[in-house]
Amino acid sequence: MDQQRHRSAPTRPQLDVWRDYIETADVLRSRLGARLLSESSLSSGDYQVLLALSEASGHTLRSSELATRIRWERSRLSHHLGRMENRELIRRVACADDVHGVDVVLTDVGLASFRNGSVPHLRAVKELFVDALSDDQLTALEDIVAALRRHLRLDDHRPGQTA
Amino acid sequence: MDQQRHRSAPTRPQLDVWRDYIETADVLRSRLGARLLSESSLSSGDYQVLLALSEASGHTLRSSELATRIRWERSRLSHHLGRMENRELIRRVACADDVHGVDVVLTDVGLASFRNGSVPHLRAVKELFVDALSDDQLTALEDIVAALRRHLRLDDHRPGQTA
Repeated sequence: MDQQRHRSAPTRPQLDVWRDYIETADVLRSRLGARLLSESSLSSGDYQVLLALSEASGHTLRSSELATRIRWERSRLSHHLGRMENRELIRRVACADDVHGVDVVLTDVGLASFRNGSVPHLRAVKELFVDALSDDQLTALEDIVAALRRHLRLDDHRPGQTA
Repeated sequence: MDQQRHRSAPTRPQLDVWRDYIETADVLRSRLGARLLSESSLSSGDYQVLLALSEASGHTLRSSELATRIRWERSRLSHHLGRMENRELIRRVACADDVHGVDVVLTDVGLASFRNGSVPHLRAVKELFVDALSDDQLTALEDIVAALRRHLRLDDHRPGQTA
């Protein structure tokens, strides 16, 4: 793609790949969010929280751990959890073993909402993203995002991913 | 990657690729935004507007065309442009040929800010994104994002991209 790997700025072709990559991700995020909201009355933020809790042991996470997993700032998460608690999607309870800690617990209502939302959401991921790519492209992309994750030193907090 | 291309949900490996793809894009956007702000006092939104204007003929775009190019809603753009106008980065002027239209014009201050911000921003794109990938991976990614763009029917509004 380019002879000069050591310059401090991307070449024009590299910059075009970058722009297309980030714009495509933004458009996918936006279209999936709009479909999720119209099909299940969950926002993308609701879905991220419900997904993390649904995968956690006992459907419960310390709020600090939840913030780390979904990469949100604590204040944003706290406000969002307040609204989700009002809708009975989650409950917050004081930790038994830490006076400063709060556990976030998925409720039955939250689990039902997550399951109802998952079906159309996963269909949308399939239609908008997976169906765009050949098997070879998906395999290549798996390799590319793994390289990016290593480079960015992103730890993987997702349980069960290797399963 | 998978034998069943016709089911309505992604397989687990396909879903893992999707999640890693979108999370990596989010982390890149966030880290680049933080670096941009600390290195040049421009937000990611400022940069997107200045970039689009810097590439436009006469450094000027109709506000509706600017909204389309950067994929923002009109109301969000209007509020953001008000703040940028207060900082003298852009000017808004009534269109000569359309009583309802507004032209957004890059000022000298805006152009200087954009150029000052571009150098560290492009260095950050190189360090965080380009340097993570081999030439073969960049070429594969170019092909993958092109497939996604076709699938999502994203028109390309960027002038000079083929140059």
